[in-house]
Amino acid sequence: MNSKKRYILLTPGPTPVPEPVLRKLSEPVLHHRTKEFGAVFKEVVEGLRYVFRTKGTVLLQTGSGTSAMEAAVANLLSPGEETLVASAGAFGNRWTKILKAYGLSAIHVEEEWGRPVDPERLEKALDGLGAKCGELKAVFLTHTDTSTGTACDVAALTRVVRKRTDAVVVVDAISGLGGQPLETDDWDLDVVVSASQKGLMNAPGLAFASASARAWKAIEKARLPRFYWDWRTYRSSLPENEIPYTPSVSLVAAQAAALRLIREEGIENVWVRTRHLAEYTRNALGALGLALFSKAPCDVLTAALLPKETDGQALVRTLLEKHNVSIAGGQEKLKGRIVRVSHMGAIRQEDVDEGLAALRKELAAAPAVR
Amino acid sequence: MNSKKRYILLTPGPTPVPEPVLRKLSEPVLHHRTKEFGAVFKEVVEGLRYVFRTKGTVLLQTGSGTSAMEAAVANLLSPGEETLVASAGAFGNRWTKILKAYGLSAIHVEEEWGRPVDPERLEKALDGLGAKCGELKAVFLTHTDTSTGTACDVAALTRVVRKRTDAVVVVDAISGLGGQPLETDDWDLDVVVSASQKGLMNAPGLAFASASARAWKAIEKARLPRFYWDWRTYRSSLPENEIPYTPSVSLVAAQAAALRLIREEGIENVWVRTRHLAEYTRNALGALGLALFSKAPCDVLTAALLPKETDGQALVRTLLEKHNVSIAGGQEKLKGRIVRVSHMGAIRQEDVDEGLAALRKELAAAPAVR
Repeated sequence: MNSKKRYILLTPGPTPVPEPVLRKLSEPVLHHRTKEFGAVFKEVVEGLRYVFRTKGTVLLQTGSGTSAMEAAVANLLSPGEETLVASAGAFGNRWTKILKAYGLSAIHVEEEWGRPVDPERLEKALDGLGAKCGELKAVFLTHTDTSTGTACDVAALTRVVRKRTDAVVVVDAISGLGGQPLETDDWDLDVVVSASQKGLMNAPGLAFASASARAWKAIEKARLPRFYWDWRTYRSSLPENEIPYTPSVSLVAAQAAALRLIREEGIENVWVRTRHLAEYTRNALGALGLALFSKAPCDVLTAALLPKETDGQALVRTLLEKHNVSIAGGQEKLKGRIVRVSHMGAIRQEDVDEGLAALRKELAAAPAVR
Repeated sequence: MNSKKRYILLTPGPTPVPEPVLRKLSEPVLHHRTKEFGAVFKEVVEGLRYVFRTKGTVLLQTGSGTSAMEAAVANLLSPGEETLVASAGAFGNRWTKILKAYGLSAIHVEEEWGRPVDPERLEKALDGLGAKCGELKAVFLTHTDTSTGTACDVAALTRVVRKRTDAVVVVDAISGLGGQPLETDDWDLDVVVSASQKGLMNAPGLAFASASARAWKAIEKARLPRFYWDWRTYRSSLPENEIPYTPSVSLVAAQAAALRLIREEGIENVWVRTRHLAEYTRNALGALGLALFSKAPCDVLTAALLPKETDGQALVRTLLEKHNVSIAGGQEKLKGRIVRVSHMGAIRQEDVDEGLAALRKELAAAPAVR
């Protein structure tokens, strides 16, 4: 990195953390069993309910976003139960990996990368199960899969599930929450998981999960092992405004500041601003001659295909080393083939402009794949 | 709290975070898949190996200390395996709770609160098992149990285990590490778990674990479910200086700064300073007429019995509200009966002086138990 230049963070998390939030991180650490910290935590819970659009429970656990995904599996299910995963990229597939780690099998409706899960395909998959459909205990979805830059119609997919089974609907909204519309209550989502370092404009290290009344029924019955993230313990600490074990006090205080910024702007306005920046970026990438990767691009991240002869991994390294621009490359089968520019949280048009100016320069000079 | 006074944090975690560490927390967030972050993480791993006194692996996971305790259980064991817990307080008992959550039974050698686990008692317990002793897969110990302010002789207890079984020895050193002597390699400890917010002088939110060659053999065979904290994934990311999933970047950068302070002072000097502060505090509490609670007081925290007529919970609240002094009360069966003053990390004699001056004042005025 070039230490004389501004650092432009355009990756899908961590995203730039606004000054007032960073300042909170460096305040002296409060003890977590005090009224003062309880008040901060209460404000965070209220702010999260505002962003999740729910009147239900929202829990906070110390950990990366993936820890909330695993917590959802461990809290909702018992050995031998049937599940379904409908995925549209690498993050969607993570649900199947977690379920497998717990010895659970999942029916996997996997969309071609770059396409959103088609509600009709989900419908057919469920109907094809016959009587087994009624036995499904959980369906796992992804709001926006940043590996491909694709948004799924979670509302429509949930309606398809509801018509056919009593399974709980679990949504990974780690990258999408606070970036593009998500309505936990209106869409009747049972568990929505997210994290601090994307749309929620905080440093990484906190994970969040909402749980509906239907989810709590499943949680009470679930028999998979869990202790640290046993959500029953978290719920029972809520009336005292406490988080079990020693929480990441500084990150919680910073999250309160970030949520205040979101509430001041208004969540609907954040959605509109993010959508506009996404449209702007899509156009700008098009002007660079790059095609969009996704057929249903999300608002929080744009993925663009690189020319066949470009070594995408070298390009991403050069952008960071020469220009201090952190843009993400592709993952797994897309390694080296795409660039991904994020529009989450506090990312502004001037950041995208600077990032794409560097990209334009280096694309012309990019080494070919060896 | 009284916002005009300095906040004196004398609790057993979080502990005061030094200025250079706090400053690191408020620096712009780096992306976690960069050479720059890799270099910071590498420095943290080296610093942790220095503090753990090990040439073996030390892993870092985003979570509270309890997450590393649970990770130890999930990574080392398989369903149906035999374990033993030797505990001397509430934190030691947490091992049995985690094991139970995973459906494992534990032989429980429970010492009276205030006494350390007696190696002879452990010896008898193991010998009493007969042939079953050889089947033990793991023995769980606690270095310092802050619920009672007691230090266990982990080296002696481990020798007792080694003579009788091949079980891995797992040590909770969350509160003791970086405060009083602990020799991972010399004492032949297989897994030592700790966290960022005590002797390691960082904000809470990171957990650490060392693993010996014997531990890695157990980890490879273990079949309990785990994904987010599957240590095999963490180990395979180490050569790239990467942490799986999105780590708490800011806390990792701050941890590097805190470990630098420890290395500059020298870990042996930190141990001596902490021991001196413990001796000083014991004397000062004695001068207040309070008896020590523990028969084997640890160096990182002093627990003192309150007069029978004192309402300890009200006292602790008053200290915070009137004096901005955070001192811990008792937990579980010691609720309201003791105060606990910590000497960890960056706590200095003047903090203890101010805290005890407030305690002296309020002890005289303390309301009686209702």
